[in-house]
Amino acid sequence: MSTPKQFDRLVPTGDTHERDVCRTCGFVNYQNPRIVVGSVVRHAGKVLLCRRAIEPRRGFWTVPAGYLELHETPEDGARREAREEALADLALGELLAIYSVPHLSQVQLIWRAELNTPGTGTALFGAGEESLEVALFDWDNLPTDEIAFPTVHWMLKHEREVMAKGYRGPFGNPE
Amino acid sequence: MSTPKQFDRLVPTGDTHERDVCRTCGFVNYQNPRIVVGSVVRHAGKVLLCRRAIEPRRGFWTVPAGYLELHETPEDGARREAREEALADLALGELLAIYSVPHLSQVQLIWRAELNTPGTGTALFGAGEESLEVALFDWDNLPTDEIAFPTVHWMLKHEREVMAKGYRGPFGNPE
Repeated sequence: MSTPKQFDRLVPTGDTHERDVCRTCGFVNYQNPRIVVGSVVRHAGKVLLCRRAIEPRRGFWTVPAGYLELHETPEDGARREAREEALADLALGELLAIYSVPHLSQVQLIWRAELNTPGTGTALFGAGEESLEVALFDWDNLPTDEIAFPTVHWMLKHEREVMAKGYRGPFGNPE
Repeated sequence: MSTPKQFDRLVPTGDTHERDVCRTCGFVNYQNPRIVVGSVVRHAGKVLLCRRAIEPRRGFWTVPAGYLELHETPEDGARREAREEALADLALGELLAIYSVPHLSQVQLIWRAELNTPGTGTALFGAGEESLEVALFDWDNLPTDEIAFPTVHWMLKHEREVMAKGYRGPFGNPE
């Protein structure tokens, strides 16, 4: 989001930080960090990934994830993103990780999840509008060179660690 | 934050949700859920609480907590709020809880914490600008009838549960 020129940068009365205040109407444009909600989805010993149909990183693989909307719980947001991007219905488990990307003012909340299995003959998943394709990968055959974002590498590594050693609380950014 | 009248409610090109779009300049006012970062602070077998000097709930007790700022990690935000509200320097532990208050579009990230102890003769904590007073409470003598917000009740209960049974991952909203 870019800030139009009619906003001035100043500290509103009673505030402690500079904000963008509209020169014309005095509207204070509070910009809050954005919350990304997503999940590492397991099924039949594999992991579900989506190949992005949109920029940034079109053609690269990621997990179902996106921005939390207003009046939405993070868990509902994670399930909605999986429905939108992977046409998948999830059973969420533990909170796998909370990552922060401060230069993008982004906080990522990533859950462990499994695919809910619908009735016979119904697809478990498919490519939503923002995905070129959706597929299950063996943990030993991940598309490592075609992963969209650093945090996706982190969460796949962290999920493997939980599968090997059990859950002991959410991971944060690696050192 | 109230929306001035010159904003129209519509779905921008390539978006999936209605947003506030300025009639004059086309500026899209993306409103994101807000992240509250805070901590349940232990010291010498007690818990630190702040009596609010500001509305809402002036005069009621809460933990050091507030809105995450842009370009800030949640952990840095939790430490900053404790410095601002309780003049306290924290050592953060595990993520105690992630609560959501969807009607306020709020996600709360609450850490377990302990007071760092400065050199002899230096106060461990004090009342910052937004606090009337800051005090340590025995766990058996909490100001239960003067707690500011429901989530503060939740986190105090959840911290007691961790102290009794050990840490097993973050709590969510109670049923």
